[in-house]
This record gives sequence, C-alpha cells and structure tokens, in this order.
Amino acid sequence: VIETRPVIEVDFQPVGKRVHVRQDTSVLQAAIEAGLGITSACGAHGSCGKCRVVILSGETNLPTANEKRIGLQDGERLACHTLLRSDARIFIPPSSLLGQQRLQTDSSLAQSPVDPVVRSFDLEISAPTLTDLRADLQRITDELRSNHNVAVGMVDIPTACHVSRLARHHNWRFRVFVRGDEIVGAAPTGTPPVGMAVDLGTTKIAAYLLDLETGRELAAAGALNPQIAYGEDVISRLNVADRQEDGTRLLAHAVRETLSELLANLTEAAGIDSGQVADCCIVGNTAMTHLLLELPIRQLVRTPYVAAVSSAQDIKVRQIGLQTAPGAYVHILPCIGGFVGADHVAMILAVDMDRVDQVTLGIDIGTNTEILLAHPERGFMGSVSCASGPAFEGAHIANGMRAAPGAIEAVSIVGPHMHVDTVDDAPPIGLCGSGVVDAMAALHKEGAMNRSGRLDADHPWVTTQSGVREVILTAADKSGTGRDITLSQEDINQILLAKGAIRAGLEILLKAAQIEPDAVREIIFAGAFGSFLNINNALTIGLFPRYRNAIFRQVGNAAAVGAKQALLSHAVRLRARQLAAETKYVELSTFPTFNRYFALGMLLPDENESQR
Amino acid sequence: VIETRPVIEVDFQPVGKRVHVRQDTSVLQAAIEAGLGITSACGAHGSCGKCRVVILSGETNLPTANEKRIGLQDGERLACHTLLRSDARIFIPPSSLLGQQRLQTDSSLAQSPVDPVVRSFDLEISAPTLTDLRADLQRITDELRSNHNVAVGMVDIPTACHVSRLARHHNWRFRVFVRGDEIVGAAPTGTPPVGMAVDLGTTKIAAYLLDLETGRELAAAGALNPQIAYGEDVISRLNVADRQEDGTRLLAHAVRETLSELLANLTEAAGIDSGQVADCCIVGNTAMTHLLLELPIRQLVRTPYVAAVSSAQDIKVRQIGLQTAPGAYVHILPCIGGFVGADHVAMILAVDMDRVDQVTLGIDIGTNTEILLAHPERGFMGSVSCASGPAFEGAHIANGMRAAPGAIEAVSIVGPHMHVDTVDDAPPIGLCGSGVVDAMAALHKEGAMNRSGRLDADHPWVTTQSGVREVILTAADKSGTGRDITLSQEDINQILLAKGAIRAGLEILLKAAQIEPDAVREIIFAGAFGSFLNINNALTIGLFPRYRNAIFRQVGNAAAVGAKQALLSHAVRLRARQLAAETKYVELSTFPTFNRYFALGMLLPDENESQR
Repeated sequence: VIETRPVIEVDFQPVGKRVHVRQDTSVLQAAIEAGLGITSACGAHGSCGKCRVVILSGETNLPTANEKRIGLQDGERLACHTLLRSDARIFIPPSSLLGQQRLQTDSSLAQSPVDPVVRSFDLEISAPTLTDLRADLQRITDELRSNHNVAVGMVDIPTACHVSRLARHHNWRFRVFVRGDEIVGAAPTGTPPVGMAVDLGTTKIAAYLLDLETGRELAAAGALNPQIAYGEDVISRLNVADRQEDGTRLLAHAVRETLSELLANLTEAAGIDSGQVADCCIVGNTAMTHLLLELPIRQLVRTPYVAAVSSAQDIKVRQIGLQTAPGAYVHILPCIGGFVGADHVAMILAVDMDRVDQVTLGIDIGTNTEILLAHPERGFMGSVSCASGPAFEGAHIANGMRAAPGAIEAVSIVGPHMHVDTVDDAPPIGLCGSGVVDAMAALHKEGAMNRSGRLDADHPWVTTQSGVREVILTAADKSGTGRDITLSQEDINQILLAKGAIRAGLEILLKAAQIEPDAVREIIFAGAFGSFLNINNALTIGLFPRYRNAIFRQVGNAAAVGAKQALLSHAVRLRARQLAAETKYVELSTFPTFNRYFALGMLLPDENESQR
Repeated sequence: VIETRPVIEVDFQPVGKRVHVRQDTSVLQAAIEAGLGITSACGAHGSCGKCRVVILSGETNLPTANEKRIGLQDGERLACHTLLRSDARIFIPPSSLLGQQRLQTDSSLAQSPVDPVVRSFDLEISAPTLTDLRADLQRITDELRSNHNVAVGMVDIPTACHVSRLARHHNWRFRVFVRGDEIVGAAPTGTPPVGMAVDLGTTKIAAYLLDLETGRELAAAGALNPQIAYGEDVISRLNVADRQEDGTRLLAHAVRETLSELLANLTEAAGIDSGQVADCCIVGNTAMTHLLLELPIRQLVRTPYVAAVSSAQDIKVRQIGLQTAPGAYVHILPCIGGFVGADHVAMILAVDMDRVDQVTLGIDIGTNTEILLAHPERGFMGSVSCASGPAFEGAHIANGMRAAPGAIEAVSIVGPHMHVDTVDDAPPIGLCGSGVVDAMAALHKEGAMNRSGRLDADHPWVTTQSGVREVILTAADKSGTGRDITLSQEDINQILLAKGAIRAGLEILLKAAQIEPDAVREIIFAGAFGSFLNINNALTIGLFPRYRNAIFRQVGNAAAVGAKQALLSHAVRLRARQLAAETKYVELSTFPTFNRYFALGMLLPDENESQR
C-alpha cells in the first residue's frame, strides 16, 4: 500500500507540543503520537464525552452524530471523532488532559510582616427606636468614630446594602471590615478577613488565600491561563485584542472567569465564606494586567510600546467579577514600562532588590527576559527587557514543550551514554527549557559544535536527517512517542538567538549604569525556568557571563511572593509605588551598540572563558 | 332591555382618575367615560396600535388576533380591544395619552453662584518616544501637576480607556475634566463640561442640563415617574420592593431607564455630546433615592422607619446606567430621616432656610407633608413629616385626579353661580388638590357645613344621592364625562383628615422648639400643590393657622432649584451636608398630645378665626 495522504502539523496547547501526522488522523491519535495523554473512557467510541478538545485553527470533518448527541459547547469537539484535514492548533482543556502541567506555586522566599490595608472592628450598636432614628449606616459610622476612633467617610451602595442587612440580621452585633476611610464588608463578630494574592502569568496563574490578620497561608491553587486559547505568547494575544471586535473583552472575561473559579476553589478548600475575602492583590506583566482590566492595548503593540496606565490601581473586585466582600478592592501593583510589568515589581519586592547593600542583578527569563540592576551606593535601579523569544518555553524548538510530564528537563553525557531525566519520570515525549540548556552544554563540552553553535557532522553524537544535522537525545524505542527525540541545528540556532538577546541586555544595562562586570556581587534568578535551570550548564554555554565576584541565587516564583507581601502590607505597596517610579527603564533599541552585543552574545564561550 | 352586567371600578394611572362602568366595557370606552383622551387613529379597529395601555391589575378578555399581529410588548394591550371583566387598574403611557399632565419644571427662585466640583484643563502633551516611554496616563498626570498645579491621584479604568484613546486621537491636544484628585472625562480642547440636575419626584421627574462653567441652563425636560405603574404612592411602591422577588431592582431599573431617556433628550435638545456630561445631582424623597440606588428598604416600611443611608452619596453615574463622561459621578444630597428626604434638603437650600434671619416655616404638602422650622436666633432647625395622605393629589377623592387637563383647579361661588376653572380650560373631568380646597372654602363661606365639616342637607348647594350628601360642582351636561362632578361628604372627611395631620405637625413642631405662633415671620410653600394653592382659601378652611405676624411666599419647585444649586456648587453641597446633620427630626408619634392636636386640627375655623 502506498501512503498518499499528505503530512500535516498539529500543535497541541497549552503544553506547546507539536507533532507531524498524516491527514485524516484523529485528534486523539495525534495526541497519542505526541505522547500526550487525553482522557478517554469509552475506547474512542464517542460516547463518554471525556476527550473534549477545542479546535483553535485548522480544518476537520463535520461533527458526527455521536458528538451532536453528547451536547458539546461552542467550539468543542471530541478528540476521538475529529479527523484533521489540515495543519491545526488544538487546545486540550485541563479536564481532558491526563496529568497536570507542573505549576510552581511555592517559593523559598520569606514573607514580610503583616500590615494589612483592611482592618476589622467588632461592633455592638443599639437598634433604632422612635427617639433614635439615625440611618443604619449613620449608627455604624458614629459607633466607629466614638468607640474605635475610626473616621469612615465612604460606603458604596452594594456594601451599604450588605452591611445594613447583616447588622439587622445579627441584632446589631457584628464585625465590619474597614479599608482606609471606607467600610468594605461585614461579617459575624470575630470572623477574620482574608485576602487573595494572584500571580497572573502568561501561561500559568497561581492564587493564594491568606489570613489578613496573621498572614498565614490558608490555601493555594493553580490554573492555566485560559487566554492561551487565543495565542501562546503575549504578542499573539495582544493582536487578537487589537484586531478582533470585542477582543479585549473576550480575553478579559476568559481570565476573569478562571480567577473566579480559583477564588471559589480557595475559599472552599479553606472552608471560609466569600464575604470574608476583604482584599486582593494581583501581579502580572503589563499585557496581562492591561487585558485583565480591559485597558487599551493598541499602544502596547506599536512602537514605542508604552502602557496606557503604569501606576498602581485600586479597583473594586466586583468590577472584575469576583465574589468577595461587596466593597473589597483589588490592588494591581504598578508596572515600570510596556515590557517590565507588575510581576517584575513584585519580584523586586520579594527579593528585596530595592534594599540590597551590594551590586545585584535580578533576572527573570521568559519570552521577554527582564533584567534588573541595583547599585545601592549610587542609588541606581535600572531595568531592561530583552526579546529572548519563547525558545526556553519549548516553542520554536522542534521537539520543544513546556515542563509537563514527559518533558526532558535534564541531560548529561557520561562517556558514551546520554542520560535524560523527565518531569514525573514519564517516558520522554519532548524537551523543555532546562533540558535544552543541559543538552547544549553537554554537546559543547563534548566538542560537538563550534563557537557559532554549528554541529560537527563528523562528531559521533551528530547525525544528519534529510540534510539537517541533529543529535538524538532519546531514541524512538525509548521515547513515549515512538519517534526519536532530537535537538536539531535549527533548535540550537533558536537558543543562540535567545542567548544573544539576554547577553546584549546584560552588557548594555551595565554600560548604561557605568558599572564594571567585576562589581556585580549577586545574581538572582526568579521565575520557573530560572529555578529549574542548571546554572553550571548555563555558564558552560555562556547564557550569562561569568561575573568574577558574583554568587548565584535561584528563588523560584518571586512574583507570587511579592504579590502576597503586597496583599499583606500597606507599607509594601508604598514601597512598590516608589521603586516603580524610581527604576529607570533602559530601552535597548536606542543603543547603537545593541547589534554588536547581540552578535557577540550569540557565540558560545571558548574553552578558557567557559572554565574561568 | 334590562342591563344585567355588574358595575366595576376602573382606576386610570398616572392621572389618578377613577370611573365606574359596566363589566365588558372596553378600556378605551372607560377612558372616554373618565374624560381621558387616549390616542386612537384607526377608529378602534385594533390596527393603528396607538392606544397601547398596560393592565396593572384586573381581569380582561384574552388578546385578540389583531393585538397579536401588532406585536405588543409584555403586559401591553390595545385599549380599544381590551374588555374589562373586573375592577381594574390601567396604566396609560405618556405616548398613548392625549395632552400632557402639567409638569412644574420652573421656579421663581434664583440660582446660586457657580463653583462646580468638576474643573476643565486644556492640555498639550508630547507623544511617547523611545526615549520617553511614560504610560499614557502618566504623561497626563505629569502635565497636570507641572503646568496646572493639579495633583491627580485617581483615574478609574473606563475613564483611563477613554482618556487614552481620546488623547491619541487628538494628537495629545485635548481637554480633561477633573473632579477633586480624579480625572472623570476628556473632550476636545475647549469643550465645556455640563451637568444634569434632577428632581426625582414620586409622580413627576424634572431634569435640567446646565453648563458647569457658566451655570446657564441649556435644556429642561419632564417625565412621569414610571414607578407609578407599581403604585401611586411611596408606601405601595416600597411594599412592591419589599415583597416581590427582585422588586427593588425592578423599581430601580424603571426609574433609571426614564432618567436615561431624559438625559438623552436633554443632550439632544442642547446639541451636546454625552461625554460632556461630567457631573449629576439628584434629589428625591428618602424612598425615591433608596429605590434609585437599590438600597435596602425593608426598614423604611417598618417602625421606626429609618433610612439605610442618610448621608450624601457620590457614586459613579454609570452605576445607575446613564450615558455620561465615563468617570462622572452623581451626587445624591443627604436626607434628614425616613420621611424627610434629599428633596427637602434641596428645598431648604433653594429658599435659604438655613440662612434666614427670622423665624420661618417651610412647608411642602404631599402624601407626606414635610414642615421645617428655622429659628436663627436659637440656631435651631427642626422638621416633622405629617402623614397627610394623598387627598390633595386627587386620591381617596371620588372625582379626584391630578392636575392633568380637565382637572378643576379653582372653584368659587358668586351668588347663585358656581364657577370652576380647569387645567388647559378643558371640559371638567375631575378635581385636583387646589380645586378641592377652593370648593371647601366656598362651601364653608356659604355656611354649607358645620365646624366638623358635616354638610347641611337642607342647604341649597347640598344634594343627597343614595343617602350620601354631596355638592355638584359641574353638572353632567357641562362635564367632559357626561356625569356630575361632585364633592361628597366622604371627600370632605378625607380632606379634614389631611388638614388635621398638617395642623398637628405645625403645633407640635412649634411646641418642640418652644416657639410662640406669633414669633413666626414667614411661611414658605414649596412644591406643586403649594404653588397652585389659593392661600386665602387655605386659611378659610384652616389648613394652616393664621400666624399673626407672618407673610406667605409660594416658591414653586424649590427642590429642583436646590438640585441645580448643588450641581453647580461644591460649597452648596457642603452646606447641604451640614444642614442635614444639624436639622433635628421631630417624630410626631412620640408626642402624647399628638391625637388631641390632630382632632382639633380637623375642625374648620369658626367665623372669628377664619376672618382674623
């Protein structure tokens, strides 16, 4: 039999795994070939309804009778009954995905002292009588003034309704939550107020419920950012928002719904009432916070790429649709610029970069890599954003994927043996960021490529397929996909482009501050990739220079820690406001030397440099 | 032919006209018998669709084929095709009513100086460049600070969106509207900000558009309060809100929709853009403002009848659904108590009762009659609310109605002749408040009743129908309904009950303040009824005592004037806040002497008193 069906490319989201299959392959089969587990209970008969996916783009067969019977939602299909006619992008909802992507919801960083914006007051008030006809709210503000020395000047309408009803229900013995001069909620006497802190990432959302009185963490939950269905990276999503009618609203509502579900999960897990949630704090990059708030984004996708609003925002939580105390606010930390967002400000807070006593670099690697430089003696804080691209997140890499089960996260070569470690020790199905760095470092040490990263065709680890040089990391018989998992010349080139961008950013930031490399004393890596990165291997391929006097620190999800700190402390919010205003944003494209630094930064270190 | 169909009562709203007809009469026919003009262009064939009415209660035939063809909205019927099977309440929308109810949208009172809460600043800002990457809003707040000495600390999200887009559309030359430390809107350079002032009455709504820079009135518009469909008086509406699922929301949305239409009419009439509407001010009684804002109302219908919120409210206009500058606020004046609302505070402002230099009474007669007493020497301001009932608004009076065309508004007896004047000189169809007072005064002068108001059966003006004594004001052959228009013994009793309540309120208020009647120097009548009232006739029937040293002033719709003053002036709002806090509310029911004053107050003056 001669196979005449053309080959198509299928891109699975949110894990970012691509696979090539023949036309008319089912989505379920393509997912199996990609090594991805999709839930299926009925043996692909289209009857259990568990393998729901969303076809983001591409042509397919029409929905079958079984699919219609099951009652799918708009855009949904069953993976087992959907045949692919063209290149396609498929979104696998978390509920249909066997195994979860690794979510980083912890950090080694300590929390700051508790100094919450919302305070609680237990009240005991006399009920209205014919001789004391003060309005409900008047009685409450009078009591706060006379017995608690608190001057309340504001109660919004939904809160006034809630407080009045609750006060009467509890015979005028109850607790109010007060924020500044405003009552934001009420609860039975003694009920502690809680708050939600959120790290709103482009890919992942991490949410935490904290007791606002003790600072204790009551629950944590993670979810994928549902906007991923509209584009894997920030730019794709901004383009959807910019070009599509009602695009911003669509993206805003998607993420608000997920936040709402996360909050419901958190309150249920902690066993508390949503009316106790008296404060929130959200951090995210500038695009994420603009989309969340439905702010204008057109100016974020056009040079010179500026934010519509960069200052901290305090808006009513109900405006983003969350179920909390009726008058509760959500605090959005300020951003530094179009590419240096509130998440970066949160990271600075978490690692105390505005308080270090020596020259320190803070680095958060992602599609945009943000770098911060603090020079306390000069009172200087500066930041750059490097367009490093999504290679470290598995995109633009043939076998790339995110750090989901089966992703190769570590690689080493010992003698004739290639060792790989995968997430959850699952059979290897692809390669995530830290695995890519490890593989390149190992090959560089083996001398399998030159300083420009070109693979040596004669080297024993290098093979050539259809004219393309590549290295097989896991052979077909050991992989979860039944095919070789490789690192190709093209993959290496993508990594070198990312490396060039990061190196250029580092060089220019130091030049702009007129700081010698040897003055750098500490380098802090924040974020998921930075935490799992093997620093020695990163130095081997020259992802960063070897600053002679510097130590390295990997701090995990610092943005989430900063969000929690800002949730718990008024002083931290003031600090954030100040440091955002004082941090100088260095725009790389205004430096004529950028291209030279970029080209130099792509080179691999020679033996001397890498061993120094 | 023997007529066997029973008689039913039909109550037409909003004019408050009742009529008795035979069962199976059409609504159109009943309206004609009530003397009310309903629009009808097709000769009752059910084809023009102009005679739409809403059946508020009562049984009817099922909708006919013609009615279905026309496509009526929920609850609507055609008056010509609807046959009445039982007692019924029918709402005639303004669009179906020939001739308009008299709306009082003017006043003789002057306006106060212009000191608006919203200020305008014309800006010229440089556009973002790669070397000046400040966020859009940052550029604007920086410019306001450096070139206009204005510190802006807040811009809400919808406003930030609007301002950012408008600034870019006009190449960064534009105007912002600033309220305190908050940007609330933006417009092309030089565009004046305008504001809307609203007197939200139980029956009528009057709205005005004013230039916030000059104070000039640009347009005025009136409408009936659509909540009338849920009850003619405040208590009926509060009961709907209290007992019906979602009742408050229903009533709130009805009035918000009308306000929205009024604003649209005003801006169209004035030829301005809704984005220029940068401020609003609304006054109304406590029930009206609570319903508008969807505040809790349960405590307003249960003793001791207190407001949920009595302080002034500043909320975003968009929260009540009006189309204005995106960040604009609506200011609701404070109320004094459950029965002394923001409209009364506005009246006090308009007539400067907080600044008079002699003892002054302010009276606003309605279903509840509010009375204010100012004693400047003692620094005393007190108020009472009397449950005078709706008799002066035409309810509980057999031939009563509001001041719509055809209402008898003045009555006099000259020799053997009874003279009546009607609104718009239309054929008489009923009797409004001022007509009732005139008729009673004329009959009292003629000696047709004793001091208790009992009609003398032997007096020439008095006739007896089915055992009930009455006076024919207009005979059937001259009336617009083809039936006699009368004032019955029962009607007189209702008026005396109202009079008793008002007199008791006046006596107790003076006693509470320990003020002798002779110390009163001025009596101010505000409101619609007070403006059209013949003062001499009111004194003849003893509606008020003859304070020996007092002069009378009728000021028209003072509440609307107060609303305009508060719209235009920050100082006036502060004054309102202070006077609302300082005015003592006197609860009549706590006075053991109330019943005695009430009984005495019902008596008609004897010859001596009425002539004194």
